Amino acid sequence: MFIIGERINGMFKDVAEAIKKKDKSVIQELAKKQISCGASALDVNVGPSSDDPKEAMGWLVKTITEVTDIPLAIDTTKADVMETGLASCKSKPIINSVNANQDKMNTLFGLAKKYNASVIGLTIDKSGIPKDADGRLELAIKIVTSAMEHGISTSDLYIDAVILPVNVAQVHGKEVLRTIRESKMLADPAPKTILGLSNVSQGAPQQNKGLINRTFLAMAIGAGLDAAIMDVSDKELVDAAITAELLMEKQLYCDSFLDAYRKK
Amino acid sequence: MFIIGERINGMFKDVAEAIKKKDKSVIQELAKKQISCGASALDVNVGPSSDDPKEAMGWLVKTITEVTDIPLAIDTTKADVMETGLASCKSKPIINSVNANQDKMNTLFGLAKKYNASVIGLTIDKSGIPKDADGRLELAIKIVTSAMEHGISTSDLYIDAVILPVNVAQVHGKEVLRTIRESKMLADPAPKTILGLSNVSQGAPQQNKGLINRTFLAMAIGAGLDAAIMDVSDKELVDAAITAELLMEKQLYCDSFLDAYRKK
Repeated sequence: MFIIGERINGMFKDVAEAIKKKDKSVIQELAKKQISCGASALDVNVGPSSDDPKEAMGWLVKTITEVTDIPLAIDTTKADVMETGLASCKSKPIINSVNANQDKMNTLFGLAKKYNASVIGLTIDKSGIPKDADGRLELAIKIVTSAMEHGISTSDLYIDAVILPVNVAQVHGKEVLRTIRESKMLADPAPKTILGLSNVSQGAPQQNKGLINRTFLAMAIGAGLDAAIMDVSDKELVDAAITAELLMEKQLYCDSFLDAYRKK
Repeated sequence: MFIIGERINGMFKDVAEAIKKKDKSVIQELAKKQISCGASALDVNVGPSSDDPKEAMGWLVKTITEVTDIPLAIDTTKADVMETGLASCKSKPIINSVNANQDKMNTLFGLAKKYNASVIGLTIDKSGIPKDADGRLELAIKIVTSAMEHGISTSDLYIDAVILPVNVAQVHGKEVLRTIRESKMLADPAPKTILGLSNVSQGAPQQNKGLINRTFLAMAIGAGLDAAIMDVSDKELVDAAITAELLMEKQLYCDSFLDAYRKK
């Protein structure tokens, strides 16, 4: 499982404060903690309240790369903030995200080519998020096509079928699962698939969030999910991911498979 | 989720002893406990050590039907024991199980017709359990065809793709998931799908069994699983089943969805 730690996001108070005060230690501890919990990459988002998001993104990326060379997912909707983040990365970065709007794709696949980045493509366009898998797959096809036109290998593309909160958009769960399954057939090499997992439990009572997240993650891995942006500090969630991948034969069985995965 | 409680099985010492001593209370308590934990039906198996399995099956079924009219899954490989069990049932019984051997199917679908029973069909034949989904689906087709020839509605048929222990047969997990998915396309009305769930964690260390069971159950529900023979006393397992069905939109969301399901 390619796990992208979600925690370095200015949506969280401690991160917003650290950005404001230029407190490196908070960010670097969050980076190290997520890696020790099993993150393969880290999401980096300056959050909604930053006065100078470009400067904040540059600072965040530099701060993180002082303590790790793990890949970073630059998470912003602004092209100039994206480019600042990409330019500051040491390892192959991940663009989080493009959607199926042609102008967006032209800009961001252009940046992907320039910075040799992987790209997360959301199945969203100007009309929003399609209600069913067919609609999502149509958008996924647009994204795959545009990636190929820009000379991006489909193996560097992650299709995100956009899971919505089960408490208000319950119909979407099974549509997302089918989109994950069928996205794999859109190109050769197959595009990878990813989810912004925590969204599925947004708004649910706190005591049920973990259960909803790990149950949907197992279901999605069963449908072929390759990666997730998620709360890697949730041990039960990571256990579920490891076990689901074991059952999909993506890791060899041994009695101590949880430890074995974590030691890798 | 149609949950069949697995606990009334002579493989367990307390059940074997109760059968020997004709101790109704042990059996009746196990029946009531499983129902209170969420069982929709109860598996009934006299176990391997019974001297007179026909007599034991009749006694077990009668003992259970004194305290509940929940459906019973008569679990035996012997046709005469099966018929004794079926004849003693008050509610529509379930035959557990037939396989894809023609003589077996003739006998057991005959009994199903006679006793108006549902049937669990294992994707096994004289050559054993196929290694992949295609092999399993071939056997599922034979079972569906034979059911139809015997006048059994495919909505009364449960295809069991036979999950094997992950510690020795890791390759089978994803094949079983695909079999579940594609079994639904074999007839109209679609046959139901079922798993003997505990088998997946057989032989794994005790502390990992629950995690393996509930993770695979969530994955299987994501693939369309309708029913499972399982340890209904495992609360985390039942929570996973409820949550996975919620995410498949098989139960309407409410904040207290776990309680709501259990109160049904």
